[in-house]
Amino acid sequence: MNELREFELSKEYRDRFQQALDQRDETFIRTSLEEVNPADITTLLYEFTSEESKYVLDILPLETRAEIINGLDSDTRTRFVKVYTPEELSAIVNQLASDDAADILNELPVRESEEVLARLDPDLRAQVVDLLRYDEHIAGGLMAKELIKARENWTVGQCVEEIRKQAENVTTFYAVWVVDEADKLLGKVSLQKLIVTEPGTLIKDIYEGEIVSVETYLEEREVAEIMKKYDLESVPVVNVQGQLVGRITIDDVVDVITEQAEEDRQAMAGIAEDVEEDDSVWRNTRARLPWLLVGIFGGVLSARFMGVFQVEIERIAAIAFFVPLIQATGGNVGIQSSSLVVQSLANPSFVDEGLWVRLRKVSLVALLNGLFLSLLVMGATSLIFGFDKLTVVVSLALFCVVVFASLVGTVTPLILNRFGFNPALASGPFITTTNDLLGLAIYFLIVSLLL
Amino acid sequence: MNELREFELSKEYRDRFQQALDQRDETFIRTSLEEVNPADITTLLYEFTSEESKYVLDILPLETRAEIINGLDSDTRTRFVKVYTPEELSAIVNQLASDDAADILNELPVRESEEVLARLDPDLRAQVVDLLRYDEHIAGGLMAKELIKARENWTVGQCVEEIRKQAENVTTFYAVWVVDEADKLLGKVSLQKLIVTEPGTLIKDIYEGEIVSVETYLEEREVAEIMKKYDLESVPVVNVQGQLVGRITIDDVVDVITEQAEEDRQAMAGIAEDVEEDDSVWRNTRARLPWLLVGIFGGVLSARFMGVFQVEIERIAAIAFFVPLIQATGGNVGIQSSSLVVQSLANPSFVDEGLWVRLRKVSLVALLNGLFLSLLVMGATSLIFGFDKLTVVVSLALFCVVVFASLVGTVTPLILNRFGFNPALASGPFITTTNDLLGLAIYFLIVSLLL
Repeated sequence: MNELREFELSKEYRDRFQQALDQRDETFIRTSLEEVNPADITTLLYEFTSEESKYVLDILPLETRAEIINGLDSDTRTRFVKVYTPEELSAIVNQLASDDAADILNELPVRESEEVLARLDPDLRAQVVDLLRYDEHIAGGLMAKELIKARENWTVGQCVEEIRKQAENVTTFYAVWVVDEADKLLGKVSLQKLIVTEPGTLIKDIYEGEIVSVETYLEEREVAEIMKKYDLESVPVVNVQGQLVGRITIDDVVDVITEQAEEDRQAMAGIAEDVEEDDSVWRNTRARLPWLLVGIFGGVLSARFMGVFQVEIERIAAIAFFVPLIQATGGNVGIQSSSLVVQSLANPSFVDEGLWVRLRKVSLVALLNGLFLSLLVMGATSLIFGFDKLTVVVSLALFCVVVFASLVGTVTPLILNRFGFNPALASGPFITTTNDLLGLAIYFLIVSLLL
Repeated sequence: MNELREFELSKEYRDRFQQALDQRDETFIRTSLEEVNPADITTLLYEFTSEESKYVLDILPLETRAEIINGLDSDTRTRFVKVYTPEELSAIVNQLASDDAADILNELPVRESEEVLARLDPDLRAQVVDLLRYDEHIAGGLMAKELIKARENWTVGQCVEEIRKQAENVTTFYAVWVVDEADKLLGKVSLQKLIVTEPGTLIKDIYEGEIVSVETYLEEREVAEIMKKYDLESVPVVNVQGQLVGRITIDDVVDVITEQAEEDRQAMAGIAEDVEEDDSVWRNTRARLPWLLVGIFGGVLSARFMGVFQVEIERIAAIAFFVPLIQATGGNVGIQSSSLVVQSLANPSFVDEGLWVRLRKVSLVALLNGLFLSLLVMGATSLIFGFDKLTVVVSLALFCVVVFASLVGTVTPLILNRFGFNPALASGPFITTTNDLLGLAIYFLIVSLLL
């Protein structure tokens, strides 16, 4: 066995490769990539222009070429495939499984997609056309059409014969699906079982009938939850008539989970579009602006609000000193609360405690934290500024802010979730800005009442 | 086939079940759970006390019982298994695969772990003892020992015979691993290949030699990356001598990815321990305090700092009005920057652009955002408060804060990562507090220079 060839791209190798590209040194490129895993060649190609990458790929066998293009992330691929003619592209897509083929066609402009589609092998074309009907983010959009179907009255031997016939089309599979004459899903036989069973045995005597399946319209998030919960490596997809129409494998679900984690992170950080650090400067700037504007708006509103208390601040400047403390704490508490809710929404296997139980508990935690923090601040400010009426005002305001920010942080993601938005948005600048303003209002309310 | 029995736990059913529990109504419990998937029974048990859950589990077959306990999340299980004697527990653990067995033993206090271990079947015991040597978060701690090994000179028929023998121990497997006499990993044969190959064929003529493997000490994060990158459903684990010692399947990696997404989210939200919304009030309070204290400390420091400018603020109260604007923008920009870095650290397949290229780009984005925002604020404040020297001071300060906060936000996660901390911590209260103080300092510096 070869050691895991972790393809560390050194600066030297990259320069040497660039040189080979400039000189169109086909021999160097071919030999240096010969034993490299396609997934690593993908990494390498992120370094070069589309034209250069195409030159490299054209040197490689068609199958490898297809695998590499399939491995590109969606954004890069959308840009990259523009250098191919529909003829070239259809030759590449012909090498792929139906779900991967459909993904690539989905990324093309309609006219090109049609042109590539028209040139595909008839079998693949029929499968892809079927898949293109589904939205990308539901089970129908995740599934592949390639699968092995067996009838109840087949023998194990017949089943193996069928696998042999289809082995070329179906790249990875973990089970044979058993269907009736109307293609209704009945159950499955694992490959392990097939291997250890006598060829003469009837499928109906060995298949598992109690299996989990998903319907085409199920949201990808839910498909991922189900596969995780029941620990499935593949799940059959059925239409509303219960007919087997495809299968989803765990590697697709890994992609779904990874993407969702990234979406949540961007929502929490207040980044508006799907953007990566290595995207262009302009795209990065644009993706950040919307939420920054929300913050600016909140800041200007804060300034306007504090303007109302100009006389008080001019009289006792110390009032203003504690605004950062009040706002920072409100923001932090709000984010903590909302992200705990987001987390419990992401684990729906836990029985929902109901809104009231949840709020009672959140309030208790808030009261405890508020009490502790306000006592602490009372002590600290007394030591630094001396104990006076303002100390009491600040501590009391802090306590109220912690409690209110907890409630806002808890309720906002629940509301967002109810109306179909990503609840993680609530852990972003949205909640911080709201809590900043809320905190300021509470503080100055108490100032004007007590001071 | 049965429809996917999505086990929706209605309040009525829960109450009926509680009643059955109170009356020790074994018949109701047994019949109502008969056709339910163990994963769903797990969900149900989160509703009842440990003693009640044990009563339910004792009614079920040993195998189902083991599957349910295996499916509990680690915290719940640690609490739950306390109701079992070492005898009962070892009977349960005996039903599990070696990796799951090792996980449970890892959660037990040392003495009980020893007692359970002593009662395990000798084969499983040996495997578990071996696994317990590894840290939970490296490949050795993720892997299972159950796997099918074949020699090069075996025939496919011999291999199938071996699978038949081991079928009971190895629950899920996707390939047969080929080793030499010294147990050194040579390659693999997929189950698909075994099924379609004539029994007389020699393994050495059909096995794939170029396969990816991982070493026992590889971090789980990296194992997950490798399996995602090369699209593997299982990966063999070798020791430093290249000997095959175990295998990791994709479902383990799904758990790793999910856990890490949760950890990152908690780090970003400033929650110190692994805590869930439905944990106790006290645990929730404690998990939130540390980062809140960081915020409070920052707030008190801000107050102290503003105290230095008391005279200025008493003269022009409006100086204080813009503190929230400056701080909020600094915080938002910092979090955006750091989370983009965190994301690019999580996708190491992209070629590292190097620190300087990265900083140059971040600076450009920061300059653009800063310019735009400060012009906007200049316009807005001129409209609201009228244009004066303070307008210029605020806009200039805002510009500087955006640029500095971007740099801090970019550099902090890189430093954390370098020293082995979770870089996502940088997107939490840590960076916000730092940027709050930094923003304040920049603002008052400009105030004291220009006003």
